[in-house]
Amino acid sequence: MESNTFTNELTFHDIFGDLQNEDFSAARNKLDALHPTDIALIIGSSPTKQREKIWGLIDPEVQGEVLSYLNEETRKNLLDTIETHEIVAVTESLPTDDLADLIQDLPQRAEEIILSLDTDRRKRLESVLSYPEDVAGGVMDLDAVTIREDVSIDVVLRYMRKLGNLPHTTDQIFVLDRDGNYQGSIFINDLIVTDPDQSVSSILKIDTPSIPADTAVAEVATLFEKLDLVSAPVVDYNQKLLGRITVDDVIDIIREEGAHSFMSMAGLDEETDTFAPVIKSTQRRSVWLGINLITAFLAAWVIGLFDATIEQMVALAVLMPVVASMGGIAGSQTLTIVIRSIALGQLGKNNTRWLFNKELLIGLLNGGIWAVIIALISYLWFEQVGLAVVIGFAILINLIFAAMSGAVIPLVLHKMNIDPALAGGVVLTTVTDVIGFMAFLGLATLYLI
Amino acid sequence: MESNTFTNELTFHDIFGDLQNEDFSAARNKLDALHPTDIALIIGSSPTKQREKIWGLIDPEVQGEVLSYLNEETRKNLLDTIETHEIVAVTESLPTDDLADLIQDLPQRAEEIILSLDTDRRKRLESVLSYPEDVAGGVMDLDAVTIREDVSIDVVLRYMRKLGNLPHTTDQIFVLDRDGNYQGSIFINDLIVTDPDQSVSSILKIDTPSIPADTAVAEVATLFEKLDLVSAPVVDYNQKLLGRITVDDVIDIIREEGAHSFMSMAGLDEETDTFAPVIKSTQRRSVWLGINLITAFLAAWVIGLFDATIEQMVALAVLMPVVASMGGIAGSQTLTIVIRSIALGQLGKNNTRWLFNKELLIGLLNGGIWAVIIALISYLWFEQVGLAVVIGFAILINLIFAAMSGAVIPLVLHKMNIDPALAGGVVLTTVTDVIGFMAFLGLATLYLI
Repeated sequence: MESNTFTNELTFHDIFGDLQNEDFSAARNKLDALHPTDIALIIGSSPTKQREKIWGLIDPEVQGEVLSYLNEETRKNLLDTIETHEIVAVTESLPTDDLADLIQDLPQRAEEIILSLDTDRRKRLESVLSYPEDVAGGVMDLDAVTIREDVSIDVVLRYMRKLGNLPHTTDQIFVLDRDGNYQGSIFINDLIVTDPDQSVSSILKIDTPSIPADTAVAEVATLFEKLDLVSAPVVDYNQKLLGRITVDDVIDIIREEGAHSFMSMAGLDEETDTFAPVIKSTQRRSVWLGINLITAFLAAWVIGLFDATIEQMVALAVLMPVVASMGGIAGSQTLTIVIRSIALGQLGKNNTRWLFNKELLIGLLNGGIWAVIIALISYLWFEQVGLAVVIGFAILINLIFAAMSGAVIPLVLHKMNIDPALAGGVVLTTVTDVIGFMAFLGLATLYLI
Repeated sequence: MESNTFTNELTFHDIFGDLQNEDFSAARNKLDALHPTDIALIIGSSPTKQREKIWGLIDPEVQGEVLSYLNEETRKNLLDTIETHEIVAVTESLPTDDLADLIQDLPQRAEEIILSLDTDRRKRLESVLSYPEDVAGGVMDLDAVTIREDVSIDVVLRYMRKLGNLPHTTDQIFVLDRDGNYQGSIFINDLIVTDPDQSVSSILKIDTPSIPADTAVAEVATLFEKLDLVSAPVVDYNQKLLGRITVDDVIDIIREEGAHSFMSMAGLDEETDTFAPVIKSTQRRSVWLGINLITAFLAAWVIGLFDATIEQMVALAVLMPVVASMGGIAGSQTLTIVIRSIALGQLGKNNTRWLFNKELLIGLLNGGIWAVIIALISYLWFEQVGLAVVIGFAILINLIFAAMSGAVIPLVLHKMNIDPALAGGVVLTTVTDVIGFMAFLGLATLYLI
């Protein structure tokens, strides 16, 4: 079992080796033995040129599934090299939600693909495509098992046996009225422990949550976590059943949320294709470098205001980075804590003030401690009492401002609907650089020169 | 249904208001209407002093469950205020894995709590406690439904009806041999669509993965994602069934992984209690500030080497931060990409070299572009061709080194078993500061003075 389920790192290397040796039949055999998620991982870990080769070696039966496991940008890059009729062929077996995902990557070819589908599938696809990707309707499955409310358990059981098998991750059957409105659920596990002679109403659960189709996916994830759900019905505003969300969709949502907050701290998108061509990556990254350049020159301008002071006392130039960097670090700690509290929904009007005061107090305490330590080190280095006192006060001032900015910036950005994880760091270091240099060089100008 | 399932922000504020007005019966009524996860959220969002008050108002029936939903540090802080016999009473209804979690927070009182349990529960608890928290054995449930292999479907069905109800998230029954060794699974959904007259062997799945108890939780999560599992058996090295892992445990694991990489970038623990007392938080944060201070003084020391140069040309001091900060930003982009690729298992010996070359090329391209732009701006500002040329070359050099360090540092740290998300940023900015200042001030010393 080990070789099937846990990723076997050797296989990866072997396949790359086979490709280099142009031993394609060996590579094909190894790919055939892998799970589609592993094939997707191999494609995602390969430079663009190798991807087409690997794609050609995959069993066409699983190509569609492999596509659905690739990250967005990687998939886009690969699909660009594949002809439309081939895409239509390999996606035939994909569930509607995965197909919808894929079509959203191909705006120019979407119509051609949609027109090639049969009427039933097209209608189902259009119902998913009518919702954005970040709400329940955009990620739902359409393969829910449903039953009418006026039947007996025995009828339900016979219906299930007639079906022969149930869609993946089915833990409940949705009970609908004549108009297709959701009435409640019958859980398979209740069905199996109950005497078939009993009525359906004895095991009908009417308090299982139904999810309105326009609910944000983040909220859907919270609901699944809170209630330990395996699946849940998705409904429109008249409680008409549209589809269902399963826990594996929720895991994808949570993974993406985590990746998003991690990647956006460096101005990157969580769907970034690590092995994309150089030019594309360079363009994307230079935007972030450009934004940061503006803040860097702002800091330089502040220093420039004090050039006469620095000329008289070069030690100031030497110690400048210490003041700025300590402020940046302390501020980013507060920033991270507050961003996370916002994400967890911990901050309301009653405790925000408390948290602000707490962070301010930490800034004051840490500011005091490090002011003394840094003043001492500076004195030992330059043997000037005045310089030591000035840098001490500059550190104290900067750490207090850092704490306040770290708390206020994400709250303000959040109010403005700007992602604090993306923009918070840049704004924060601008503040700590400017305040740090102002305080240090300003105090030096006033008291040392 | 809305009010039960989706978090109602108003309720939060109301409860804080009631507490301030000392209207405890109103607060108690509102708490009674909330799900235990929401009560846990309210406690986690309250300053320490208010927590005890809220705790006292919670229905004792749900107190145990509320404890299990708190984050580790918050729980520890709260438990410190609760007497041992009360802890024993409220945790009576908790599943063994949650109780094990809780006991690990209370090393001094663990023995007392364990001794107060009945023999059966104590034995179960000790089996979970014998594994660390970060492997399958440490997070498994012990409430698996099992059956012997030599029975008919009809017997299985009758056994299920006798049980009356199944543990949460049960999608399969584990089939054991006489010695308790795992042989395979019967999925409830197969059971329900199959004719009761058929034999168990017709629906016995022997290829469902069993998880060795010492498997890392991160690997367990990957397995669940890959195979869309709802639950899986946990076994020892003789395939003896020990327990099971369910998908809701996996969601917790994935949430924690995401929080970990986000928080550790700022030197914070994902289990940090945001509303902990000031002194505790100050201590914890100052460690990180201390580490960063060393790197800041290293940068200062490098600048100090060139103090004579700066004295002759103060514009150098003004522009210094631009060189350092552009290097830091570019490097952290590469760092983030590589840390994520390591986490996704994308990097092997065949593509690491390729990725390194790609990042180097991006560094070269972006270095070239920004060198020209920054040289131009510097020329317009200071009107010195020499200075403009020197800063251009310094930017180019620093962005190239930033790309190389961003790629190499996380790989080296990972090899040394140091978490790259925690230590990568500090090491990287040390390199980009030192290289940036060396290149800029060094070139200036050679060519401008």
